[in-house]
Amino acid sequence: MPVLLAPQRAPALPQLLQAADSVGLGCSITGTVSADALRIAGIGSLHTAGPTEISFLSNPRLQGQLAECQAAAVILRPQDWAEFQAQHPESPAWVAVLCSQPYLMYALLAQWFDQHRLAGLPSGIHPSAVVADDAVLEDGVHVGPLAVIESRTRIGAGTRIGPGCVIGPDCVIGRDSLLHAHVTLYHGVKVGDRAILHGGVVLGADGFGFAPDPRTPGAWAKIAQLGGVQIGNDVEIGANTTVDRGAVEDTVLGDGVKLDNQIMIGHNCRIGDHTAMAACVGVAGSTIMGQRCVIGGAAMFGGHLTLGDDVHISGGTAVTSDILTAGRYTGVFPVAEHGAWQHNAAVIGQLAQLRKRVRTTERQAASLAELMNYKQDT
Amino acid sequence: MPVLLAPQRAPALPQLLQAADSVGLGCSITGTVSADALRIAGIGSLHTAGPTEISFLSNPRLQGQLAECQAAAVILRPQDWAEFQAQHPESPAWVAVLCSQPYLMYALLAQWFDQHRLAGLPSGIHPSAVVADDAVLEDGVHVGPLAVIESRTRIGAGTRIGPGCVIGPDCVIGRDSLLHAHVTLYHGVKVGDRAILHGGVVLGADGFGFAPDPRTPGAWAKIAQLGGVQIGNDVEIGANTTVDRGAVEDTVLGDGVKLDNQIMIGHNCRIGDHTAMAACVGVAGSTIMGQRCVIGGAAMFGGHLTLGDDVHISGGTAVTSDILTAGRYTGVFPVAEHGAWQHNAAVIGQLAQLRKRVRTTERQAASLAELMNYKQDT
Amino acid sequence: MPVLLAPQRAPALPQLLQAADSVGLGCSITGTVSADALRIAGIGSLHTAGPTEISFLSNPRLQGQLAECQAAAVILRPQDWAEFQAQHPESPAWVAVLCSQPYLMYALLAQWFDQHRLAGLPSGIHPSAVVADDAVLEDGVHVGPLAVIESRTRIGAGTRIGPGCVIGPDCVIGRDSLLHAHVTLYHGVKVGDRAILHGGVVLGADGFGFAPDPRTPGAWAKIAQLGGVQIGNDVEIGANTTVDRGAVEDTVLGDGVKLDNQIMIGHNCRIGDHTAMAACVGVAGSTIMGQRCVIGGAAMFGGHLTLGDDVHISGGTAVTSDILTAGRYTGVFPVAEHGAWQHNAAVIGQLAQLRKRVRTTERQAASLAELMNYKQDT
Repeated sequence: MPVLLAPQRAPALPQLLQAADSVGLGCSITGTVSADALRIAGIGSLHTAGPTEISFLSNPRLQGQLAECQAAAVILRPQDWAEFQAQHPESPAWVAVLCSQPYLMYALLAQWFDQHRLAGLPSGIHPSAVVADDAVLEDGVHVGPLAVIESRTRIGAGTRIGPGCVIGPDCVIGRDSLLHAHVTLYHGVKVGDRAILHGGVVLGADGFGFAPDPRTPGAWAKIAQLGGVQIGNDVEIGANTTVDRGAVEDTVLGDGVKLDNQIMIGHNCRIGDHTAMAACVGVAGSTIMGQRCVIGGAAMFGGHLTLGDDVHISGGTAVTSDILTAGRYTGVFPVAEHGAWQHNAAVIGQLAQLRKRVRTTERQAASLAELMNYKQDT
Repeated sequence: MPVLLAPQRAPALPQLLQAADSVGLGCSITGTVSADALRIAGIGSLHTAGPTEISFLSNPRLQGQLAECQAAAVILRPQDWAEFQAQHPESPAWVAVLCSQPYLMYALLAQWFDQHRLAGLPSGIHPSAVVADDAVLEDGVHVGPLAVIESRTRIGAGTRIGPGCVIGPDCVIGRDSLLHAHVTLYHGVKVGDRAILHGGVVLGADGFGFAPDPRTPGAWAKIAQLGGVQIGNDVEIGANTTVDRGAVEDTVLGDGVKLDNQIMIGHNCRIGDHTAMAACVGVAGSTIMGQRCVIGGAAMFGGHLTLGDDVHISGGTAVTSDILTAGRYTGVFPVAEHGAWQHNAAVIGQLAQLRKRVRTTERQAASLAELMNYKQDT
Repeated sequence: MPVLLAPQRAPALPQLLQAADSVGLGCSITGTVSADALRIAGIGSLHTAGPTEISFLSNPRLQGQLAECQAAAVILRPQDWAEFQAQHPESPAWVAVLCSQPYLMYALLAQWFDQHRLAGLPSGIHPSAVVADDAVLEDGVHVGPLAVIESRTRIGAGTRIGPGCVIGPDCVIGRDSLLHAHVTLYHGVKVGDRAILHGGVVLGADGFGFAPDPRTPGAWAKIAQLGGVQIGNDVEIGANTTVDRGAVEDTVLGDGVKLDNQIMIGHNCRIGDHTAMAACVGVAGSTIMGQRCVIGGAAMFGGHLTLGDDVHISGGTAVTSDILTAGRYTGVFPVAEHGAWQHNAAVIGQLAQLRKRVRTTERQAASLAELMNYKQDT
């Protein structure tokens, strides 16, 4: 388990809860031990946390791990604590921290510890970075070793540019954003405040646009991509994900969009606010997605489609037509033992014919029944 | 909208059309306004272009946008212009540019504007780049900041190596190619003329080859990959796409091949001239693809397959056997509302059995019918 | 074909076989020519190898290429050599090298030639690399141009860090590992001995973890990812593959795991020893995979799943539930000509209804048959 802070820097439990609870969840500490004496150096899971760590119960299936948990403190809902006490008359090794939303409180604590780690990182512009004379870096911008920032680019206060990043000319990055190592921004890409861009992200590469070139049969003439990329505030983009620049207009990611790793967003897509996509999703060009959509991993979208708000797509599903109504949609071939799959898959190519055979048999049975009735009647 | 040129640098419409029309399409300007006075600073779509931009009509569904279009000029086919005039007796805000292939003319104009932008980029070898003494850089090669060019590598005249690229030893890159930031070439990779390689491309990583290692049950012994990668002329490769080196012989991409982002080409593949693949495609090792194939996004190819010329594969399709005949091929589970999918998917595992039941019922109905006839006869 | 060594450095055949055979396969050279005189400069395939190259027969379908093969020597099984001699009384152009496992011997030879190439690469710490003062580099560590190694990171003896790599703070990399160009390790990533990490690999980026943020409807609060990544010994990871850090505990890859390109391993996954995955696979978070699994390209795994040991998943299959029994599993929609696919896919949405119709018809036929029997009886 990661012990995140040295003992002398670990905060006391009440101070930690107060400092981390930026949402105002209002946790309350229970139990008989002196809470002030508890110093919390990190976060652990129920079955691994030790006496300097805090843990949490959010998944009801893990309730059985509470009795043996060695954490200093456990965040859990009042009803789960009452249930635990009813079954375990003796006090556990840990202090109970009662909270209506333990998972969210855990998220806030994790953010607090991570901010602490980030605050300890080096700051300033590393001498090996190559920053254009006419780039504008606001106060407190950090530029890591061997990063490149090109002409006329503007970077907001408090933003960190990781080692080896390349930020092309005429880009704008907002405040308090975090670019990890090896992020690439082509020219003219705009990123909002509080963005997190992970290693290997490429924003603004050319969209995939070609017209048949009449000079050579089968050859393609490139359509230079003159649009840009606009990324809203509070967006996170996972490692090696790519967002292409628009052909003429911009490719747009709304506020609060969360993209996992290895996602591909084609040119001229518009992704609505707070839409989240798991890893390996591909979205072909000019597809419009609504707000608060949730896209499972390795889902795939054709081009020029429209998805409404609050559409959930299951992982591995290929979407090839508009989906305008909120809801969950799926299209995955069920996995089976290989031999069974072979037998059943062989029928797939005969389905239309099979349906016709069923219809023919239905008719035959119906006419036999009719005939039989007739004969019975006569 | 991107205004690409400052007003004083924007060309007059006739000069622009002439300069951009490298194919000889031969546009003609119509209308009553003085075309010479029109200065074109950029390209816009029909509904966003402003009075210093040119637009185009290629998709007939957008015809309704012509009347309100605020562009300086619109490229369209003579028949579309005639139809527009028939319906709109008054002159539009824009000058009509008649052209048999508006989409291609748009592509050429976009190229012209982009060339203009590229011409303004810095040139020469950036002092922070690390170029081996025995690398050979022909005239007009540009090497960006913090790029690495290793021993014995040869780069053709006019080629641009972007910031942070790593070009391994013994590579050859042709003339007038453009490598964006963070491109990686392993040793011994050959790239032709006029290539465009986007950010995060990796050419020449080891193919995935292993033999069972008898010393440890289940362990794999690496097969070192001794072949190389050969890329033809006029090839474009999208961001974060990878092309592995061959095991013994080379992996080969023909002339004019266009690969979108996040594609994976396995070792010893051979991709025919002018074949184009949309994003997220995977091609396993030793698969041979013909010329002018068109591969939809997220399609997937098993290894050691052969595809003929002019084969089109729909997005999301898994190809697991040879396809030698030109045509379009598909294999995608249709998406549906999740509950409906569950109901129907549950039958997939019973398809072979269902077919058998249909056959049994057919026979039963047939023998009943026969029996009935017999009884009728008797 | 790659001629790997200059003639004067090419070893004689017997010395080469002895030097390369680290497994103790024990090849024997047959034939009438003087084997000592044969100098082997490289490896070629049967139909391309020339007189300074060695080739091998492992695929029985290539037996027909033996007669015309121009290699200096061919590795093959004694029984294949006997069969060849029976059919070809005259001596071939090549010397036969008899070996029980030609493919493994080829792997060992390829390793030998590649080690030779690697030994010729530059060594030491390139002056343009940025290495933190408190990083610990053991003997014989090579750091390429413009690589970054951050604070407190420890790198084992004989390990090569490629050009442009970024190794974050508090990492540990074992001995004799090989990091190609542009590898990114976030902070606190542990990699074992003899690892091979290819270009564009990102280890330790944040897992995709969010909790609903009650302050804004639909918004997501980040769960900072405090765990790390642990990679065992003898692991190879392909180009642009990403392995995310754990939320609280570590993401773990066991010894001998082999990952191809563009794979995504989510946070808190645990991949068992010697499991191999072909390219473009996605594994969602917290999925546990056993030992010696073999995963086909573009397969996709939901989160929180368990796979047993020795499970084989076919390429393109989406796995959405546990698979605890060894065996091969598949779930792929069969590809077909597009029109045929359309016809059959249209039935997919009616399968549950079709099954019901079959059942109804079965019952009708059964009751008709019963009735008929009754009538026959009466």
